[in-house]
Amino acid sequence: MSFNHREEHIDDQMLIMQANLDDMNPEWVSYIMDKLFDRGANDVYVVPIIMKKGRPGMMLNVLVDAGRLGEMEDVIFSETTTLGIRYIHASCHRLARDFERVDTPWGPLTVKAGYHQGKLVQFAPEFKECEQIAKQHQVPLKVVYDEVRRNFMEKQKLS
Amino acid sequence: MSFNHREEHIDDQMLIMQANLDDMNPEWVSYIMDKLFDRGANDVYVVPIIMKKGRPGMMLNVLVDAGRLGEMEDVIFSETTTLGIRYIHASCHRLARDFERVDTPWGPLTVKAGYHQGKLVQFAPEFKECEQIAKQHQVPLKVVYDEVRRNFMEKQKLS
Amino acid sequence: MSFNHREEHIDDQMLIMQANLDDMNPEWVSYIMDKLFDRGANDVYVVPIIMKKGRPGMMLNVLVDAGRLGEMEDVIFSETTTLGIRYIHASCHRLARDFERVDTPWGPLTVKAGYHQGKLVQFAPEFKECEQIAKQHQVPLKVVYDEVRRNFMEKQKLS
Amino acid sequence: MSFNHREEHIDDQMLIMQANLDDMNPEWVSYIMDKLFDRGANDVYVVPIIMKKGRPGMMLNVLVDAGRLGEMEDVIFSETTTLGIRYIHASCHRLARDFERVDTPWGPLTVKAGYHQGKLVQFAPEFKECEQIAKQHQVPLKVVYDEVRRNFMEKQKLS
Amino acid sequence: MSFNHREEHIDDQMLIMQANLDDMNPEWVSYIMDKLFDRGANDVYVVPIIMKKGRPGMMLNVLVDAGRLGEMEDVIFSETTTLGIRYIHASCHRLARDFERVDTPWGPLTVKAGYHQGKLVQFAPEFKECEQIAKQHQVPLKVVYDEVRRNFMEKQKLS
Amino acid sequence: MSFNHREEHIDDQMLIMQANLDDMNPEWVSYIMDKLFDRGANDVYVVPIIMKKGRPGMMLNVLVDAGRLGEMEDVIFSETTTLGIRYIHASCHRLARDFERVDTPWGPLTVKAGYHQGKLVQFAPEFKECEQIAKQHQVPLKVVYDEVRRNFMEKQKLS
Repeated sequence: MSFNHREEHIDDQMLIMQANLDDMNPEWVSYIMDKLFDRGANDVYVVPIIMKKGRPGMMLNVLVDAGRLGEMEDVIFSETTTLGIRYIHASCHRLARDFERVDTPWGPLTVKAGYHQGKLVQFAPEFKECEQIAKQHQVPLKVVYDEVRRNFMEKQKLS
Repeated sequence: MSFNHREEHIDDQMLIMQANLDDMNPEWVSYIMDKLFDRGANDVYVVPIIMKKGRPGMMLNVLVDAGRLGEMEDVIFSETTTLGIRYIHASCHRLARDFERVDTPWGPLTVKAGYHQGKLVQFAPEFKECEQIAKQHQVPLKVVYDEVRRNFMEKQKLS
Repeated sequence: MSFNHREEHIDDQMLIMQANLDDMNPEWVSYIMDKLFDRGANDVYVVPIIMKKGRPGMMLNVLVDAGRLGEMEDVIFSETTTLGIRYIHASCHRLARDFERVDTPWGPLTVKAGYHQGKLVQFAPEFKECEQIAKQHQVPLKVVYDEVRRNFMEKQKLS
Repeated sequence: MSFNHREEHIDDQMLIMQANLDDMNPEWVSYIMDKLFDRGANDVYVVPIIMKKGRPGMMLNVLVDAGRLGEMEDVIFSETTTLGIRYIHASCHRLARDFERVDTPWGPLTVKAGYHQGKLVQFAPEFKECEQIAKQHQVPLKVVYDEVRRNFMEKQKLS
Repeated sequence: MSFNHREEHIDDQMLIMQANLDDMNPEWVSYIMDKLFDRGANDVYVVPIIMKKGRPGMMLNVLVDAGRLGEMEDVIFSETTTLGIRYIHASCHRLARDFERVDTPWGPLTVKAGYHQGKLVQFAPEFKECEQIAKQHQVPLKVVYDEVRRNFMEKQKLS
Repeated sequence: MSFNHREEHIDDQMLIMQANLDDMNPEWVSYIMDKLFDRGANDVYVVPIIMKKGRPGMMLNVLVDAGRLGEMEDVIFSETTTLGIRYIHASCHRLARDFERVDTPWGPLTVKAGYHQGKLVQFAPEFKECEQIAKQHQVPLKVVYDEVRRNFMEKQKLS
């Protein structure tokens, strides 16, 4: 069963925004990342860096549609300690994505699949669902992952 | 008291220069960073990376005005071991900056403030001054920072 | 088919040896790691660190039987640039290990399995074999891994 | 108002447990960390490392009371992919801790304070509470932190 | 003796391709890097990052001629677990390169030299050759490097 | 000319002290490292780590004689934000060290040499001196290093 399909495409209107932080409480980072995702960031990640005078710093990276530049800047300037933000133009090539359900001993679970030129190249169990099953059924998370992957592969063989 | 004011602006003529270093004495890094700052780099930072054959390397990054590309290249080629430099075009959005003096038990100290669309969004004690006070008065650096920040906040409330 | 079995055990005579390197050509690291493994190190790994004056450094770590301390020191002092080595006492709890062969479309391949208190808790395809199959049959490495894991799981279900 | 007080003390029965992971899905890390905390770990953290053949790995670290070694091992062996765990003996010096409430524009909030030889040396707003206030009142998290810290400092001056 | 010479030049048709990996077996990384080099990548390196939910991830970076974008994408989509690749335009300034042979106690060995505006700015012994000599003659690798560098410097003085 | 000689020895009374910092301004790190060195630390270094809730943290490490534990704790508790310090016992094997002067085009410069069982295994130009020469004579730092190393090697050959 497939209940979602996005076409493979290239988006040329993306920005990578970066801010170097060397004087910010690292405790705030996950809060800020969540807020940027909430406001529409496609991806947010932090790169550990070494800044001037050997300071251990963090480079905040935000991948976002060019149209949302202002919104992201508002969050970064208000929530971090940076005095400047730089951004560069980027293109994103995204695979077609499909969510499929596979049977497992704990009921049907979702697999996210990626297609390149019509061919299945990626598949991954949905983390949130597997985590929930692992907690509920007291089974190691890796066992849940293995079982979902095995069942997805079986299903592919039959189809 | 305010004794400096730079307007908020966007600079579209910036470059991010990068050189991957996998065969250089890491001891030289801070010297090279200082030299790049001296010659006009806006920012310099190092990213720990893993290069081919699993070598732990360093990616040197220089943020600089496009007009200074040649000067930066001269430093990087003469001081590091790289055989190539790559660069990408970037825009920088910089806040309006203001330096204010606040009273503290150890005399007046400077706070650097940042303004986004006319609104105060950042403020930070000047590291060098606080470091000097901490050494001179034998007081923890974090206590100096806290005191400067508290006094800046009090002053803002009154104004 | 099982052709090897080591008992689960705890070894209390292990050392963790550490040397901080801030002035060594990183290009030499993999050579040095290989040499330490050749001389009997149980594990060797490198931790990126920040040393005095903000130098990006590497902490070399060697896990080894206490009886081989001298041999490891000879390699580290002769091959790296350190002037000192520190070491701490450690215990190692190692799982029982078993190598099993599973059938795959590319012939039988090896899985390394780990047992804790008699129960299977780990299994992993042998990297070298999978890498060879991936190259020889022009198939993605991850596909080889998935297939080996799937077949191992099937076999477990039947037994 | 103080509603909790733990004495400053040294605990000599601690272990630092370590497992190097070079073949595990990094997606599972936070789940595993949470589980170790749930079972009584004092601290859990991950160190990015470079392992043999230049593999980017993670060293899982667990700080725990020696009496809980077995419980931690059960989690690590069942949830990660490691075939071995090493551990070293450690002592922990912990400050006296006190939770105090301070008034803020958003109501009373908690500050965790640390005392060394009877003297206040640390204080920090409780992250969870500040995060909640920031979301509820649509105010930057750093503003909440600053306000809590300022009020705690004021209160200290008066007492 | 010089047996190769490439002119110093700037190449404006380069791409930096990036894929963030937070759910991939790190064991596969060196295999994938090798494959990208085989298919024509100019450079490949991995940056340790922190992704959403605090996951330790890896950012794969590929520097490549714009004309090889499709080939690189095929490798990345088939061999990694990413659902998207981003790329940015970059220019590369590459030094003139020359390979010279110098006499050493173990026979002639190669030095790679780099020239900026006609002036020698870099020179480095060839790793593979030095590694082989170190193994064959049971001499520390750093001694081989030092000897090659010393002989190259002597030769430069005389010429 | 040799003007200093320390014997090769093993010191079994060392401690490795560690404090995890996830809520401290990284700007303070180098100040704190300097202070610990001033008070007698043998080595101080920082390891980038990932802490609970995916926070990017720093693990401060201090290598110090067991007799100075209290002094180091005073600095760490007063200058950082940690509520606890852990420490483990370690042994340090230190090479015999010798400082030698070698002639260079810029006058005599110092080389630090290390001896293992009476045999020269390490030598390194003194950073501070080379840095000063590089600045004064406007010559790349790496050229100064190369020249010092070459002259030291020549001298060794003759003696």
